[in-house]
Amino acid sequence: MLAKTPPMGWNSWDCYGASVTEDIVRQNADYMAKHLKQYGWEYIVVDIQWFQPTADNHEYKPFADLAMDEYSRLLPAENRFPSAKNGAGFKALGEYIHSLGLKLGIHIMRGIPRQAAHRNTKIKGIDLTARDIALPNSICQWNPDMYGVNPDSKGAKEYYNSLFELYAEWGVDFVKVDDIAREFHVGEINLIRQAIDNCGREIVLSISPGASPIEHAEYFKENVNMWRITDDFWDRWDLLLDMFERAQKWCTHAVPGHFPDADMLPVGAINQCYSKDAWTKFTKDEQVTMMTLWCIMRSPLMIGGELTKCDEFTLNLLTNADLLEMLNNSWCARQVYRRDDTIVWTAVQKNGGNYLAVFNIADEAKIISVELTKCGLDGEYNAFELWSKDKSVLKETLTVNINPHGVKIFKFD
Amino acid sequence: MLAKTPPMGWNSWDCYGASVTEDIVRQNADYMAKHLKQYGWEYIVVDIQWFQPTADNHEYKPFADLAMDEYSRLLPAENRFPSAKNGAGFKALGEYIHSLGLKLGIHIMRGIPRQAAHRNTKIKGIDLTARDIALPNSICQWNPDMYGVNPDSKGAKEYYNSLFELYAEWGVDFVKVDDIAREFHVGEINLIRQAIDNCGREIVLSISPGASPIEHAEYFKENVNMWRITDDFWDRWDLLLDMFERAQKWCTHAVPGHFPDADMLPVGAINQCYSKDAWTKFTKDEQVTMMTLWCIMRSPLMIGGELTKCDEFTLNLLTNADLLEMLNNSWCARQVYRRDDTIVWTAVQKNGGNYLAVFNIADEAKIISVELTKCGLDGEYNAFELWSKDKSVLKETLTVNINPHGVKIFKFD
Amino acid sequence: MLAKTPPMGWNSWDCYGASVTEDIVRQNADYMAKHLKQYGWEYIVVDIQWFQPTADNHEYKPFADLAMDEYSRLLPAENRFPSAKNGAGFKALGEYIHSLGLKLGIHIMRGIPRQAAHRNTKIKGIDLTARDIALPNSICQWNPDMYGVNPDSKGAKEYYNSLFELYAEWGVDFVKVDDIAREFHVGEINLIRQAIDNCGREIVLSISPGASPIEHAEYFKENVNMWRITDDFWDRWDLLLDMFERAQKWCTHAVPGHFPDADMLPVGAINQCYSKDAWTKFTKDEQVTMMTLWCIMRSPLMIGGELTKCDEFTLNLLTNADLLEMLNNSWCARQVYRRDDTIVWTAVQKNGGNYLAVFNIADEAKIISVELTKCGLDGEYNAFELWSKDKSVLKETLTVNINPHGVKIFKFD
Amino acid sequence: MLAKTPPMGWNSWDCYGASVTEDIVRQNADYMAKHLKQYGWEYIVVDIQWFQPTADNHEYKPFADLAMDEYSRLLPAENRFPSAKNGAGFKALGEYIHSLGLKLGIHIMRGIPRQAAHRNTKIKGIDLTARDIALPNSICQWNPDMYGVNPDSKGAKEYYNSLFELYAEWGVDFVKVDDIAREFHVGEINLIRQAIDNCGREIVLSISPGASPIEHAEYFKENVNMWRITDDFWDRWDLLLDMFERAQKWCTHAVPGHFPDADMLPVGAINQCYSKDAWTKFTKDEQVTMMTLWCIMRSPLMIGGELTKCDEFTLNLLTNADLLEMLNNSWCARQVYRRDDTIVWTAVQKNGGNYLAVFNIADEAKIISVELTKCGLDGEYNAFELWSKDKSVLKETLTVNINPHGVKIFKFD
Repeated sequence: MLAKTPPMGWNSWDCYGASVTEDIVRQNADYMAKHLKQYGWEYIVVDIQWFQPTADNHEYKPFADLAMDEYSRLLPAENRFPSAKNGAGFKALGEYIHSLGLKLGIHIMRGIPRQAAHRNTKIKGIDLTARDIALPNSICQWNPDMYGVNPDSKGAKEYYNSLFELYAEWGVDFVKVDDIAREFHVGEINLIRQAIDNCGREIVLSISPGASPIEHAEYFKENVNMWRITDDFWDRWDLLLDMFERAQKWCTHAVPGHFPDADMLPVGAINQCYSKDAWTKFTKDEQVTMMTLWCIMRSPLMIGGELTKCDEFTLNLLTNADLLEMLNNSWCARQVYRRDDTIVWTAVQKNGGNYLAVFNIADEAKIISVELTKCGLDGEYNAFELWSKDKSVLKETLTVNINPHGVKIFKFD
Repeated sequence: MLAKTPPMGWNSWDCYGASVTEDIVRQNADYMAKHLKQYGWEYIVVDIQWFQPTADNHEYKPFADLAMDEYSRLLPAENRFPSAKNGAGFKALGEYIHSLGLKLGIHIMRGIPRQAAHRNTKIKGIDLTARDIALPNSICQWNPDMYGVNPDSKGAKEYYNSLFELYAEWGVDFVKVDDIAREFHVGEINLIRQAIDNCGREIVLSISPGASPIEHAEYFKENVNMWRITDDFWDRWDLLLDMFERAQKWCTHAVPGHFPDADMLPVGAINQCYSKDAWTKFTKDEQVTMMTLWCIMRSPLMIGGELTKCDEFTLNLLTNADLLEMLNNSWCARQVYRRDDTIVWTAVQKNGGNYLAVFNIADEAKIISVELTKCGLDGEYNAFELWSKDKSVLKETLTVNINPHGVKIFKFD
Repeated sequence: MLAKTPPMGWNSWDCYGASVTEDIVRQNADYMAKHLKQYGWEYIVVDIQWFQPTADNHEYKPFADLAMDEYSRLLPAENRFPSAKNGAGFKALGEYIHSLGLKLGIHIMRGIPRQAAHRNTKIKGIDLTARDIALPNSICQWNPDMYGVNPDSKGAKEYYNSLFELYAEWGVDFVKVDDIAREFHVGEINLIRQAIDNCGREIVLSISPGASPIEHAEYFKENVNMWRITDDFWDRWDLLLDMFERAQKWCTHAVPGHFPDADMLPVGAINQCYSKDAWTKFTKDEQVTMMTLWCIMRSPLMIGGELTKCDEFTLNLLTNADLLEMLNNSWCARQVYRRDDTIVWTAVQKNGGNYLAVFNIADEAKIISVELTKCGLDGEYNAFELWSKDKSVLKETLTVNINPHGVKIFKFD
Repeated sequence: MLAKTPPMGWNSWDCYGASVTEDIVRQNADYMAKHLKQYGWEYIVVDIQWFQPTADNHEYKPFADLAMDEYSRLLPAENRFPSAKNGAGFKALGEYIHSLGLKLGIHIMRGIPRQAAHRNTKIKGIDLTARDIALPNSICQWNPDMYGVNPDSKGAKEYYNSLFELYAEWGVDFVKVDDIAREFHVGEINLIRQAIDNCGREIVLSISPGASPIEHAEYFKENVNMWRITDDFWDRWDLLLDMFERAQKWCTHAVPGHFPDADMLPVGAINQCYSKDAWTKFTKDEQVTMMTLWCIMRSPLMIGGELTKCDEFTLNLLTNADLLEMLNNSWCARQVYRRDDTIVWTAVQKNGGNYLAVFNIADEAKIISVELTKCGLDGEYNAFELWSKDKSVLKETLTVNINPHGVKIFKFD
């Protein structure tokens, strides 16, 4: 089963926006292979506009000339990805990543390049052109590159099949398709699903941006491996606080193969395209809170920071084996209650035992008492705190001192 | 702990409306003691208007003269409850019920009798009268008996304390307070909570009618033992179907001592005040579905039918020990998905194992396949169906043939 | 035709609340006859709770004993209205008011006294009692005296007929029925309409409180003479400012016999039940604005202040014959535009000429230019300002200096 | 003053969609000059896509090559408008229309051609290109030709000025700007307003499509001459019925120079691009109702049918001098009431007298009585019906027999 547990990897967006280069990708892959792979981290994802030669930060330049083959398919910009020369695409990069025991992911936008429609270039495998399948009024609100494809048009299927045929040749293992989830373009998702199924390679399908509409939860669990539950997530407490509500709403939909996605982890050296000194604005406690919430709700984990600049705190944050065991082997996660500044979650460990997380969303440290019975825990327990590794015996009441915006997460046996 | 598991009992409303009599109550208590008590059934609840001498069905007669003591407190109508003569109240009835090993419940309306305000009768324990605490514009939309009490008025506390002092004298174990939950009268609930805490007797507090506002869920879990999540529930499929959504919304709030209440079970001989031949209009499958849903979501169970007329089917329905074990010892109930005509729930048995319920809400029998992995169950299991007692070994997929409006509920070990 | 032009009178509410007495009523009638009658003022209206012996301000005392006859009909409290002794009701007061050339109005609440239902008193003309027609859950939210009458019940028609039979005997010319318009009790309005038509006397029917629902505008124009378009209006600028929007919404519905009612004019000595020194908090400009808006939209005019304390400003405000000519003989009033702090209205004088009002809703004086063409006025005009009596000749543009919260209103010929 | 009364003309959309040709335009102008001009009809408007060589009906072909000059300005397609050869544009056509005593109107879309942005063509008068002012995510939902212009960008003003400089050269008298009113693009309207003011020629500014947002009514009255109050209007009763509500909402905003626009009159030979036999589906009564409503609310009148095919009924419909007198010289139009199947409007004739229109919206003929007093008409009148020319004397009540979906409109003196 593909994505039996939540996918874990690195993504270039938070640190490089639209401007990542091949060198950077390789360096991050090297780091992951050496320091993170043994904890389950495996995907290296090249985010948006690898086909745009002049991209240099998180902004998009309208009407830029994009690297494209004769069949209206975008190609890596050779000035940024030298190994893509002569139409080689991501093949060499994929081979390198695979040689490290890792997997290659790429980002694409729904649709066909606008320049293809205006230049009227060909579609592979059928005697039609971009104009025959492009919808002139189906555009992305925030990116200028593409027109949507009319899923009912002749040629639409051939176009999407030709894309994934190419990606399979390159050795792609993971595709993040953008502009397709919040505005729910079901016809194009169906074409992509079929194209993946037909391409001869196992590829994880991730869709963006969020918030994906919850009324389609069952559709997502049938057709995609992960779907965003939020717009882009950044290193701001208000966004992290807001995630508790989203997590509560979506947590029952995390099942093997299919996971609601709380978006990247903006930790460590993010925003490198603006400054080499840039660093996450989250406090350490907030980062611990984020990791704990993502793991108990079973969100995919995609690291947003430049890996080679990881400090000890960040590395520890990403390699807490006890926490990742919860990510991989728990179920029945639920918010038990939210009262004043306290949020309590529980989950069940499939191999025995339960988890209890106590979050302090106040701006000051708080001593918090939790009546275990009101969480459904009515016995006596051996308690193990996953971050401090402290052990205790508990009954009826748990009393903890928690830092501002912090958390304690216990395993109860 | 009071109500550590969901309260189970019998209530006079579905079969007798406002017109139940002492004889009937005693006969139902006798039946419960003999046939149901060993399964956990224990409460015998006298529902609305036991103080109204001329009540004869589910309707309320406006401006009727109600039995009342000098302190504005309603008393059992002596023509209907002979043992209440000479101001004895429910004392003798309570003693009888206790002698059977059962518990006595009564229904009350929020507020003070309108007739007390218009006659200006006294309040016990303070030199004030009904006019001092009654709110002329606080009425119940569907019952004409009471005015609300101003919780901030002098005398309000004394009035509610005097009520529960009386109920404690009578030996009451359970009070269902009406007209107080959907229109959320927090001031009066607080007074009642305090009056119970001060009365010297353990009394289960049940509030009605629903749907209680979910934004007060945490308040309910602090202050009441059960709260209605629906308006009156009757033997109609549309209402039962509707309960799945309510159950999904509320199920995480069922904890020891505090339970969302899906209302009475209209099974067997209901509506006896209209016809001695009246019988539930639910099919057998619908009744099994109802019992299964109530038990997996951990709703209190209150039988609505005349017990002495129970047939074999109904008795079996109410005494499925495997199902009641789930009611009492499961947690983490959740709706896994609802797709077309199938609804799937899971829960975790605290002593080991999991439950999986598959409901068929279609009007025809259906063969339904459930991918166990998408329910979070990714191993091989010994499966036990709780109604048929069939056993099997399952992996990956469960395929079942389910009757229209029916259910199969498995324990997986 | 009754109420061919908007009714004009005095009402006791703003100055005395529920506590007005016969002496006061007579004194105000005397003043009106002497100073106001020649300008068209004619109604003297006794507002709410003339039947409550202990009323002393704008508050209502719950469960008070009300003066009532054997047929469940409320009577004037004899301690407050001495001439009502021996069941004489308002007959003597009416005769006095008529002797002055004025007309008598009274306020009533929809429904039947609660005390009648609880005491079970008779209904005139049919062998039924108050309990047979009272609705226990139909109450007024802000007054504790009455239960609504079930318009479909036997006896409802007889009850309302008996009321207006009595009022006709008393010589009542105007009835303001309360608790019946905003919560639109059409069944009871119909019974009142019929009772008036059957009572043998012409009685203006005014209904309260507002805002009356505009979807029933056509019903009002068929059945009542005036209906409130607002909740109680007081001497606050925010309420006056808000009236422009209400006036705009309702102005097309003012026709002979039927007028949207902007409520009383809180001018001069209001709130006399609290202090004999109390005075309107409106500035003079605001009062001029109010009078102008009421007159151009053709609202009924009911003076709220104690008449005997009128100062010169107030008397002039109420006796501007040019303005009252607009009230009585204009039509087609409309808000032309509202832009920044300027509101412009026009109306057509039936006997020739047009009106143009320019309101300054800013908190400072403003010089305002109005393009006459954009108001539909594209000729050259003789302009007459109705408050200052200034004359000018105008074409294309009007430029005026207007006080804060003030107005200039021109007649254009 | 430009457009002192509502503009009257012919527009090619209803009969030819995007496909009108020069020959057709000239023939319709000839007809208007001969048969309609003396009644006030004067504008000949060439509607959408005169720049698209292959347009042949009401549909738009995406990504078509449009006729365009070097400065990104669209030009008439020479195959359709032969006199436009050699960059002459509409100059010759304008001269011809002016020679008939008529005026030339053209339709344009907000924005700059998408092909200009993708080809990166120049902007006149500044050293910038289309890419510098085009907004890639500002598109029209229903037409594929243009990108919106960023009103804050350098070059935006020069671009719009260059357009109207060209139109002034062509002799254009009327511009209908589309995709700019319902989605209210205030920045681009402002640029167009300024471009017109600077172009040295008086040009009526009409904006589309509707419904224009009423919260901007004052803006429209300052900046544009006519603005649509509805989406495209066609020959369907439901749309006509719906117009009463729109007319009621907007009628107070019709002032000299500025008129709410109820859209074209789909009368006579419409839809000629599909069939030369096509004819309006409106009944004769419905057409009379439409003309009456448009005239009493003072909407601009744009004929939608091929003029050369006008039959006698249609010609009479368009040349009722009494009705057009109301269009040109009335004010204070208002809906008096809508009750069951009757709608009544009044207006005031500036030169004396009033109008009263009685519409029957029922599907059967009805005898309708109108109480004149409830319309504000309380005298005795000489009545003249504008369609039948019948005369009568009326007082208090008007009783008329009206055809299904028909109207009678009286002038009262």
